[in-house]
Amino acid sequence: MTKNFAIAPNAPATVRGGGVEQEQFLSILSREEAFRRFEAAVFPRPPASEQCALEDALGRVLAADLVSPIDVPPFDRSNVDGFAVQSNDLATRGQANPARLALNPETLACGVAPTLSVSSGTATPISTGGMVPRGADAIVMVEHTQPLEDDAVEVRRAASAGQFISYAGSDIARGEMLLRAGTVIGSREIGMAAACGLARLPVARKVKVAVLSTGDELAQPGQALGPASVYDTNGAIIAAAVFENGGVPDFLGAFPDDEDKLEAAMRAALATHDMIILSGGTSKGAGDVSHRIVARLGQPGIVAHGVALKPGKPLCLAVCEAKPVVILPGFPTSAMFTFHDMIAPILRRMAGLPPRAETRVSVRVPVRIASELGRTEFTMVSLVQGDDGLIAYPTGKGSGAITSFSQADGFLRIEALADHLPAGAQAEVTLFTPHLRIPDLVIIGSHCTGLDPVLAPLARDGLTVRSLSVGSLGGLAAAKRGECDLAPIHLYDPQTDSYNARFLADGLELVAGWRRMQGIAFRAGDQRFEGAGANEAVANALADPDCLMVNRNQGAGTRILIDRLLGQHRPGGYWNQPRSHNAVAAAIAQERADWGVTIEPVAKAAGLGFIPLTEESYDFVLVSARKQRSAVQAFLSALHAPESREALKQAGFRPA
Amino acid sequence: MTKNFAIAPNAPATVRGGGVEQEQFLSILSREEAFRRFEAAVFPRPPASEQCALEDALGRVLAADLVSPIDVPPFDRSNVDGFAVQSNDLATRGQANPARLALNPETLACGVAPTLSVSSGTATPISTGGMVPRGADAIVMVEHTQPLEDDAVEVRRAASAGQFISYAGSDIARGEMLLRAGTVIGSREIGMAAACGLARLPVARKVKVAVLSTGDELAQPGQALGPASVYDTNGAIIAAAVFENGGVPDFLGAFPDDEDKLEAAMRAALATHDMIILSGGTSKGAGDVSHRIVARLGQPGIVAHGVALKPGKPLCLAVCEAKPVVILPGFPTSAMFTFHDMIAPILRRMAGLPPRAETRVSVRVPVRIASELGRTEFTMVSLVQGDDGLIAYPTGKGSGAITSFSQADGFLRIEALADHLPAGAQAEVTLFTPHLRIPDLVIIGSHCTGLDPVLAPLARDGLTVRSLSVGSLGGLAAAKRGECDLAPIHLYDPQTDSYNARFLADGLELVAGWRRMQGIAFRAGDQRFEGAGANEAVANALADPDCLMVNRNQGAGTRILIDRLLGQHRPGGYWNQPRSHNAVAAAIAQERADWGVTIEPVAKAAGLGFIPLTEESYDFVLVSARKQRSAVQAFLSALHAPESREALKQAGFRPA
Repeated sequence: MTKNFAIAPNAPATVRGGGVEQEQFLSILSREEAFRRFEAAVFPRPPASEQCALEDALGRVLAADLVSPIDVPPFDRSNVDGFAVQSNDLATRGQANPARLALNPETLACGVAPTLSVSSGTATPISTGGMVPRGADAIVMVEHTQPLEDDAVEVRRAASAGQFISYAGSDIARGEMLLRAGTVIGSREIGMAAACGLARLPVARKVKVAVLSTGDELAQPGQALGPASVYDTNGAIIAAAVFENGGVPDFLGAFPDDEDKLEAAMRAALATHDMIILSGGTSKGAGDVSHRIVARLGQPGIVAHGVALKPGKPLCLAVCEAKPVVILPGFPTSAMFTFHDMIAPILRRMAGLPPRAETRVSVRVPVRIASELGRTEFTMVSLVQGDDGLIAYPTGKGSGAITSFSQADGFLRIEALADHLPAGAQAEVTLFTPHLRIPDLVIIGSHCTGLDPVLAPLARDGLTVRSLSVGSLGGLAAAKRGECDLAPIHLYDPQTDSYNARFLADGLELVAGWRRMQGIAFRAGDQRFEGAGANEAVANALADPDCLMVNRNQGAGTRILIDRLLGQHRPGGYWNQPRSHNAVAAAIAQERADWGVTIEPVAKAAGLGFIPLTEESYDFVLVSARKQRSAVQAFLSALHAPESREALKQAGFRPA
Repeated sequence: MTKNFAIAPNAPATVRGGGVEQEQFLSILSREEAFRRFEAAVFPRPPASEQCALEDALGRVLAADLVSPIDVPPFDRSNVDGFAVQSNDLATRGQANPARLALNPETLACGVAPTLSVSSGTATPISTGGMVPRGADAIVMVEHTQPLEDDAVEVRRAASAGQFISYAGSDIARGEMLLRAGTVIGSREIGMAAACGLARLPVARKVKVAVLSTGDELAQPGQALGPASVYDTNGAIIAAAVFENGGVPDFLGAFPDDEDKLEAAMRAALATHDMIILSGGTSKGAGDVSHRIVARLGQPGIVAHGVALKPGKPLCLAVCEAKPVVILPGFPTSAMFTFHDMIAPILRRMAGLPPRAETRVSVRVPVRIASELGRTEFTMVSLVQGDDGLIAYPTGKGSGAITSFSQADGFLRIEALADHLPAGAQAEVTLFTPHLRIPDLVIIGSHCTGLDPVLAPLARDGLTVRSLSVGSLGGLAAAKRGECDLAPIHLYDPQTDSYNARFLADGLELVAGWRRMQGIAFRAGDQRFEGAGANEAVANALADPDCLMVNRNQGAGTRILIDRLLGQHRPGGYWNQPRSHNAVAAAIAQERADWGVTIEPVAKAAGLGFIPLTEESYDFVLVSARKQRSAVQAFLSALHAPESREALKQAGFRPA
């Protein structure tokens, strides 16, 4: 029964059997070597281009140099409303000695071709944009003239040759290089092409990318989520990232781990697409199915499987019948990071796009970041503004978390030869977007859903808030270092049986937040708990050996409460110690545990029964030096506003 | 007949009559006041939103806060392939004293809900991504185990509570604020929504913008260009810019200056769109038609007409039945600049988009830039890297030129109270795109189409070239200041009857380019020139009073040649002095002149007859200090490559 599991996770497919810790790295390639092999197997390749209507060309990539077929303007053009004249007639004229010019009997409105020459002593009325007639070498503005009755005009200014004329080809000359192959077409390039009359442009053909998810556990967004199943995140995010990098994604859906069906789908996709991207199941067994198929899909086949890269070691790169075939790791952050690092550059090059512009910023890292020796490691970080520059916090939920990638501003790189980055180190962060928008308000500490109604008015007023969940103690440390405006904490001091105030330091002050009722959560209808008081409920739970609890992590305020409830007892489930109120509720709702201690709003949202125990105080440590900042003042106003207080009560909190 | 022209250009519609120079500025508003009035008439307005499928949501703007309806992960999840255990069983284990655990008879592959509890002394096989069963509080990795024959497993490591488990809700907790209203949805946001199972998102409804061009002179790209007509540039570029700023453009075409038809089109557009953008004809008369229609289209009507802004004074801003109606100036650079400065912010706000991020850089301005007192003036500039920072060259072809806008990197602002920016001044440039890509090679000087085949190999190799056409003397000055790598020049020295070499200074050297044959161009079949030698041709031209020439500007090498040909004669057309070879050819081809002096490739491209006179040398001034730069070396290789020489010959040049 264990055979399917006796495979080192992330090991190359050739290495099987448990416990072979040395062997599994044998064919792991460095990130650079893997990319080099992949690139060499894909390129060079003949560029694929097509004609595209001008109005559809936005964002496309020019496939050939464009040369202007005409002069722009196509003729000598008047830049003002006025009269086309011979400048010689006006060389010495002015207010005192105006010239009288006879009007030629035509008016050169826009689009009207002149039929008469301008000879000395005459003038032809001409509009801005009108075609300068034969014989004329200057335009006088209508403001510098006075109409005379007898089809003549008086001119009160001197004129110089060429004045108010844009000469043919002075903007763009016929035969001039207009736009080079490889240019990404924006509105400005559209304007250049339109001015030259080009209605169709040669553009690089878009790269058609088949996107497949694999895994028995996947449900598509919008479907009901079965037990033990998760929503397919990779399908949607990879399709979107393909589009952002010049590809046309074709999401073919999630495939269960059925080798025949998956192979049929991949062969069909290979015939009709330019590239295939699979995001593998997270388990090794599931991954092997994909790898076996790719290995027989076409030549040259797999060029790299296993890369000394974190996140992303299980990445598999192949080229089959000249088409890239990629198996991304199953975890979302691993999948997205490897896509951007290794796949997007290939896709962009196939699509004729230039490499993505990268913006780097210097940062200080406030906490130690561990790294694995021998692998280039990338850590996703969120940035906040400190007193002496940018501070980078690891988003830190691991590669299994979508938020690790989605909520990061960028990443920092730890070289393969380093085993950590020390706290306080300087580092360079590569941003995911070219612009870094420094948030107006930074909140670092313990998270609470009660924050949402308080922050809502700030968001409505256009203030941006960055909220980093690092726990109460991490928030307190950040506040002491001046890295945030506010640190929400709920720290219990057993000596004084009070919350929060005793943990302050110089330069910090406490702003009262709200109270959260903690209590025993259980599945509604469970007779061991339903209708019982707290002491009775705990006694019933301890008396039943089949009754499992779910605990909390060491250091949580709630854990202190639980340990007091249990005394010396260590019931089943005691070591199950998740780090959040929500995880406690989920364990009980899913019958993995029968009871635990959480807060009332969370228990209620999960549909659980609840026996109140005691309130904890969720307050805000305010960095005094930042108190007068307008975003902080806006926060304080919102915190005390009647609407926020009402919303907090509705959600089950008790505002202070 | 002149009545249609007796209107001060750009004056408000209420001010009519020629020569009223004071009055025309009476109702001109400052840029800030005009924008304030426009904004106040458009906002506040109820936000318009709609539901959008997740796969179509890329680039859309979230219209409401999103709260996660589930915990992510939805259950306590294994992060590795291995065995779910009770950590207490393994607390003191290691290589020396492995534990033997009995296997529970189920395997928790992904998507499989556990049915059995893990009790002390037992283990359940579990995949990465599998659901942690009741009773288990840790996962041991398969590598740290050895399968035993009798449905048991040996574990050789200690385990701590919670190891390799991601707890339910640890990534995203149920009820947690996921994404705020106003967020622009990128692939990362798609990932967040997918992880929570959201298949449809509330997004801001796109803003439907009707785009109309007006003017009798306009031809659409792809159509044949009639005499005196020009291609409609504004229609395509405005539609593209609308799209880039969150709108859905609907280009309704170009309308001739027919008041009834234009009004009918605008009333229809107003009924079915959220905004109308007209780009007016360039002439005052044409503009008045649009203004009269807008004035009666709906309340409150025109809020600003005439803005103290350059380019862009004729801008007209109106709001009719709560919908913005805008008449942009007719000239392309004026139209685009005012669109980006005054219209895009309104459009983006209507579309729920944040303001466009602006990047500013510090620059030095190498030349004096004149400015009109009393108007905020914006000058489009190209940037090059100098020895001590960025240098900003005005693109300088005026607001009538599409290239002034399209080839600029950004713009600098000259305040209303300044009448110029002195040469050498420091200034701030706002970039059109967030990234400034410093070109690999900078060429400043005289332009020649012969450059194109020489630069083509560089472009193929991914090198970026910036080529600024400022004439030979401007290029020489830039080279002396070290602002470019190469300055192409063709400067004639009458004293030595030679080109270019005598104009060098210390630190500069000359690289031979190619020769261009100058000669007399005429319409094929003109008996005054056909078959004649040069002297005979000029004599014939001078003998015919109806024969018009086209000259060149003072300072052009060609002008010296022409003056020698003419001696003391000043024939008709002498004062028509365009600044380029192409303008000379166009004037002759369009019968605005009969003969002139231009270079052979240009005359041939225009289908003209040609009588050779003398060659001019087009050479490159090289800044010696930059000679070893790889892009310069690549240029020199390309210049001397047989393919370039062959291409130059094909185009009618004679490589040195």
